[in-house]
Amino acid sequence: MRWARFERHGAVSYGIVQGETIETVDGSPFGVHHRTGRAYPLNTVKLLVPVIPPTFYAAGLNYVGHVKDQQAQGQKVNVPEKPDMGYRAANALVASGDPVVIPRDAGPRIQYEAELVVVIGKQAKHLSEADALSCVFGYTIGNDVSERDWQKSDRTFWRSKNTDTFKPMGPWIETDVNLDELKTTVRVNGKTTIEFPTNHMLFGIARYISTMTRYLTLHPGDIIWMGTEGTSPNLKAGDQVDIEISGIGTLSNRFVAET
Amino acid sequence: MRWARFERHGAVSYGIVQGETIETVDGSPFGVHHRTGRAYPLNTVKLLVPVIPPTFYAAGLNYVGHVKDQQAQGQKVNVPEKPDMGYRAANALVASGDPVVIPRDAGPRIQYEAELVVVIGKQAKHLSEADALSCVFGYTIGNDVSERDWQKSDRTFWRSKNTDTFKPMGPWIETDVNLDELKTTVRVNGKTTIEFPTNHMLFGIARYISTMTRYLTLHPGDIIWMGTEGTSPNLKAGDQVDIEISGIGTLSNRFVAET
Repeated sequence: MRWARFERHGAVSYGIVQGETIETVDGSPFGVHHRTGRAYPLNTVKLLVPVIPPTFYAAGLNYVGHVKDQQAQGQKVNVPEKPDMGYRAANALVASGDPVVIPRDAGPRIQYEAELVVVIGKQAKHLSEADALSCVFGYTIGNDVSERDWQKSDRTFWRSKNTDTFKPMGPWIETDVNLDELKTTVRVNGKTTIEFPTNHMLFGIARYISTMTRYLTLHPGDIIWMGTEGTSPNLKAGDQVDIEISGIGTLSNRFVAET
Repeated sequence: MRWARFERHGAVSYGIVQGETIETVDGSPFGVHHRTGRAYPLNTVKLLVPVIPPTFYAAGLNYVGHVKDQQAQGQKVNVPEKPDMGYRAANALVASGDPVVIPRDAGPRIQYEAELVVVIGKQAKHLSEADALSCVFGYTIGNDVSERDWQKSDRTFWRSKNTDTFKPMGPWIETDVNLDELKTTVRVNGKTTIEFPTNHMLFGIARYISTMTRYLTLHPGDIIWMGTEGTSPNLKAGDQVDIEISGIGTLSNRFVAET
């Protein structure tokens, strides 16, 4: 099932996407809800970020090729020896279709990072690796847009990764997913720049969730961005980036210059 | 004015604290609200975390003495040259009066960090330093509890600083504050361990907000923890930590062992 959050005539609600239509749902997928039977053509509504997370987790370095590519670009990173979780900030979230705004003083190395996003559905603590996926509601797609000069110069990722609009996420949450069959494909201006098996992670989702919930409680609506493979060309205003994960959908955003 | 969030007979609401009573307010201080005239003795309600932030910012290293003390303890830190903002996680928030639970496998260096917390009241972007404080709603108190071995060994602060219950915040939000008159006092089991002028920061609140809003939008309810001075003794189960900031109040939490 595909859950989207959308706006129509100023009203915001959740809905279930089927083909090219979306049916309005009263309530949220994370609480009491019921289908209304009211459906609209998908192209007549504005898709929103599918969930505003209570806490926004990000695995960071979780594919071997990405770590090596980052090292080659001068970032001080190593292949992690254990699944230490990072964070991103809700202020930076935008929906599929929204522009990514490049600040005037950004350097030339604006890059995408195509990521599988885990959406938590149930409160969870002390989950074993075998039980870890039981708290997952579904999956969506994230673009962990990064400014590599700030990533290198700043003490934290606040500006390199959490500038407003730097975290596109969507287009919706897919609940029926076979992780081992997923393939991530990125296209810049229609041309494929990378394809990789989405689940070929350094530490898998179950390992991350089990490790995290030893110390912290996951809550419904929390999101975990699972990292990316490879590297990205430098992006410039006017570029269109499409991240497709087979079986989930396509996250599409155009990069524009700050005015 | 002192805004608290509290629970009474299972109902959660905001209220205004006056002396030893609290008056229930319908709505939230960040939106439409009105006073109800219904007041209760403060000691008959359960205070909650005064705000659940959309984004949880933390300045980190922002007092010179703290940086030097951390260096002496083996942490890889330097005096920052500019105000780079960090993050903490909402899962770890607990109220004044709640226990801080020390995980079974934590090392011996569990320490407090006494911090002034800025609570944002208005959406803000591109604020000059002169206008920066115009978006501030009020101030509360935070204890940035830290496990120093994990802080050193892990790639991020996820476990050292964001383990459940490691972020006590409260007891309430004070809107009438003269920053330069504030004094922070920490007591462990009733004995004062440090006193410092709260506003003697490396980078002040206005500088931080102006820098941040060059790139990101602050939203009502966002919180910014402003860092701490000095160092802390190692805390153990049974210890009571009181952080008082004159003119705001006292944040009190007992440390307990995970069972």
